[in-house]
Order: sequence, then C-alpha cells, then structure tokens
Amino acid sequence: MGNTLKLTVPDGLPFIDWEREFDFPVADVFRAHGDPSLITQWLGPRGTNVVIDHYDFHTGGGFRYSHTGPDGASYVFSGIFHTVRENEFAVQTFEYDGYPDVVSIEFASFEDLGNGRSRLRGHGVYPSMAARDGMASSGMEGGMSDGYDRLEELLGQQGR
Amino acid sequence: MGNTLKLTVPDGLPFIDWEREFDFPVADVFRAHGDPSLITQWLGPRGTNVVIDHYDFHTGGGFRYSHTGPDGASYVFSGIFHTVRENEFAVQTFEYDGYPDVVSIEFASFEDLGNGRSRLRGHGVYPSMAARDGMASSGMEGGMSDGYDRLEELLGQQGR
Repeated sequence: MGNTLKLTVPDGLPFIDWEREFDFPVADVFRAHGDPSLITQWLGPRGTNVVIDHYDFHTGGGFRYSHTGPDGASYVFSGIFHTVRENEFAVQTFEYDGYPDVVSIEFASFEDLGNGRSRLRGHGVYPSMAARDGMASSGMEGGMSDGYDRLEELLGQQGR
Repeated sequence: MGNTLKLTVPDGLPFIDWEREFDFPVADVFRAHGDPSLITQWLGPRGTNVVIDHYDFHTGGGFRYSHTGPDGASYVFSGIFHTVRENEFAVQTFEYDGYPDVVSIEFASFEDLGNGRSRLRGHGVYPSMAARDGMASSGMEGGMSDGYDRLEELLGQQGR
C-alpha cells in the first residue's frame, strides 16, 4: 500500500524497471523532473547534496550534476535527453563518471491517474549484464526510493 | 577474408554486435562518420539517397536524416551523440520514425591496426527483445554491409 517504489531487476535481461505512484498531478511530478531548482531538493538519497553543472530538460538538451554524500564522497552523472514530451515521456542517456563509457538509456513515462494522482514508470537499459548488475547492486534502489519520497514531500510543501 | 561486415545477433540478449576492418587509417574512417558531406555518399544500402536535416558529430550534438530507396519509400532516423572522441569512440542514440520512442543506443569503437588499417566495432543495445529482433530482421545487415563497402570505395576514390 502507499506510494512506494517498485523496482524490478529481471533475470537474464540487462534491464531495470521501476514504478512509483504519487498523490500529485502528473504536471507536478513532471515539473519536478525538469526544474533544476527542484531537482536539487529531491534527487538522490537523503543527506545527499546535489550540485548541478547544467540540466536542460528538453529534447536534445543535456545534464551533468554531482551527488555528494554525508561522507563527502562525490559522484558525477551526465547524459543527454533524446526525447522530452511535457507531462508524458522522456528518454535520456545516463553515465556515471566512475564507469566511463558504460552508458545506459532510461525511458520515463508520466501517467495521469485522475483524482490528482499520477504514476511514473521507468525502464533502464544497460549495455551488458555486468553493467546492469553493477547498477542494481550500487544502492540504486535505496537512492531512488528516498528520492521519490523526497519528491512527494517537496510537492506537499509547495502546496497543490 | 577481406574486409567484410561480421554481424552478430546473440541469443537471449537485446544486442546486435558488428565488426568491420578497413584498408584505411582510423582517422579516415572516423572522418567519414563525422562529415555530413561524406555521410551522404556512403550511409545505407546501394541506391539509397540520403538527405541530412542536421548531423553534428560532437558530444551533445544530434542528427536527423532520411533514406530514400529506389522504390521512393523514405525512412527517417534521428538521435543524439552522447560521446564523441576523435578517432576513438562514439556513443549515440538512434530512433527510426516508423517506431517512435523505441530508442536504441549504439557504441562505436575505432581502432588503429597499424599499416594504414583500422577496425570499427559496434554494439547496439535495444530496449526490448522485440525491438532488437525487429531491427535484426529489418534488412539492417545488408544495409550496413553495403554502407561499409561504399565507405571503403569512397575513401579509395579520395586517395590516401
């Protein structure tokens, strides 16, 4: 019950799939993915400090940001938005500087559930099983779960 | 023997891999992938007319072009270059307008073999097995084989 992350790591295929519902309209959830001043308030595990180098959430735009954890360790992520359709769909590449050239591609679908609720579905595609397994065991699930909880709290603070 | 395309469609994983050697230096083969005025002279099956909307072979750049075959049918392809490193490596997204939102990611490694020869290795990654199977059965192999043969002929015409 409740709005929790459901993350699936399928056997034998280099994918990670996830799903999360929100008690907020799809436009709010989409906006939180596109506005750098909001991104810094929710992306990543609790206690993470996000610093954005650039974040242009439009078709053909790109992003680069760092996460710094409570222990001071920093992680840099970058990619390109292949497609961004407002309140509906986005496709981006994704690379962690710690594994250069191991680029994944992520699909995000934003769905209106009515009654001011929405659903986000994600599909991550990795260039090898090893890359997928590495990502799945990197703490991704905890970080995403925290991030989406923070996103929902942020939207609550902003009022509807 | 000879410089022929070797294309592999692995069982059970949504990948396509390919490899092709050239009797030309890596810089020539790389340049033929980056210069739109050369792209139009080799990309795709023989008899294809390539029209480029834009083609910016740099990290963060994008491309969009159409292939028109002898029967007049047109196919539009587009994507973004996530990484381009001169004479070495490129990562791009790839989408065929006939299957919108089914975006793949392609890795290309350019390798110097010495003696004025080079090798290109490609790794295509698809968001589902169905997408990969569709691509593999689309005539991709013949089109790529023709294209690389034409590329080698083009470099021969240009002289070394």
